[in-house]
Amino acid sequence: MEATAMLVQLVIDEWKKQNKKLDDVLESIPADRFLHEMAPGKNTGIYMEGHLAAVNDGIIPLIGAGTKLYPELEAIFLRSPDKSGHSFPPLAELTAAWKAVNEHLYAYIATMQPADWLQRHTAVSETDFAKEPHRNKLNILVNRTAHQAYHLGQLAFLK
Amino acid sequence: MEATAMLVQLVIDEWKKQNKKLDDVLESIPADRFLHEMAPGKNTGIYMEGHLAAVNDGIIPLIGAGTKLYPELEAIFLRSPDKSGHSFPPLAELTAAWKAVNEHLYAYIATMQPADWLQRHTAVSETDFAKEPHRNKLNILVNRTAHQAYHLGQLAFLK
Repeated sequence: MEATAMLVQLVIDEWKKQNKKLDDVLESIPADRFLHEMAPGKNTGIYMEGHLAAVNDGIIPLIGAGTKLYPELEAIFLRSPDKSGHSFPPLAELTAAWKAVNEHLYAYIATMQPADWLQRHTAVSETDFAKEPHRNKLNILVNRTAHQAYHLGQLAFLK
Repeated sequence: MEATAMLVQLVIDEWKKQNKKLDDVLESIPADRFLHEMAPGKNTGIYMEGHLAAVNDGIIPLIGAGTKLYPELEAIFLRSPDKSGHSFPPLAELTAAWKAVNEHLYAYIATMQPADWLQRHTAVSETDFAKEPHRNKLNILVNRTAHQAYHLGQLAFLK
């Protein structure tokens, strides 16, 4: 169990590191830059910020930490692409949502034991999980870390 | 040990998934597009491809899989930024290097046992590792996966 605890912590730490990088981007890039496209013809920074906040909000139910704090972000930032006619909340609101979601997740994660991360995430059925035990809560973080890093690389172009 | 084996596999699978994404990018973006900047004033695609090949080459000694296959990439793609006056090998050579490095790593990784991943990576001393057991070989993959995803997001802008 000692090895499991250490490996779980490695994954959590990398995910938190990516969250910290987005915090830093939000502090280092002027708010009006977020209205720009990250590269010509590509997504805007504000869409990406909303997208990343909505994705982390989606981790809450998946790991059993409760219900989404900002379910209204889903329609705009997960189910619709950028420039699809939705008006966006101001960047400051999205940043506040991003921070509140992470605060909620960090508090819940602090109560989790290593073994809890090996349990199924809530989007997989018990039957499927019996056959595919890698579809656990930790896998959600592994996957979301890479997803977030992918978009952080893009956001960094606004610097 | 069963849990350790599963967690190790989760991390390896996500790293391989990111490698596969770069394979796909290399197939889907025309070679001449790689000579372009990924966004105005930013790194070129070919620099990034060389950088990612050099980074994976660096994993070889870190996990004990031998010596770098392409040490000559280091000066150009790790120790120098883009546009620093180096002439680059052709994209086809960099792609071949990228594929050879991964083939070597995959073959070695197939021989590793889960416990091997908990051993120190070769850039940390035995003394430091005794105090910081998270500086193990698996941590290299966790870190490199996020690094690669970061740059893949940028390369995707060349599509």
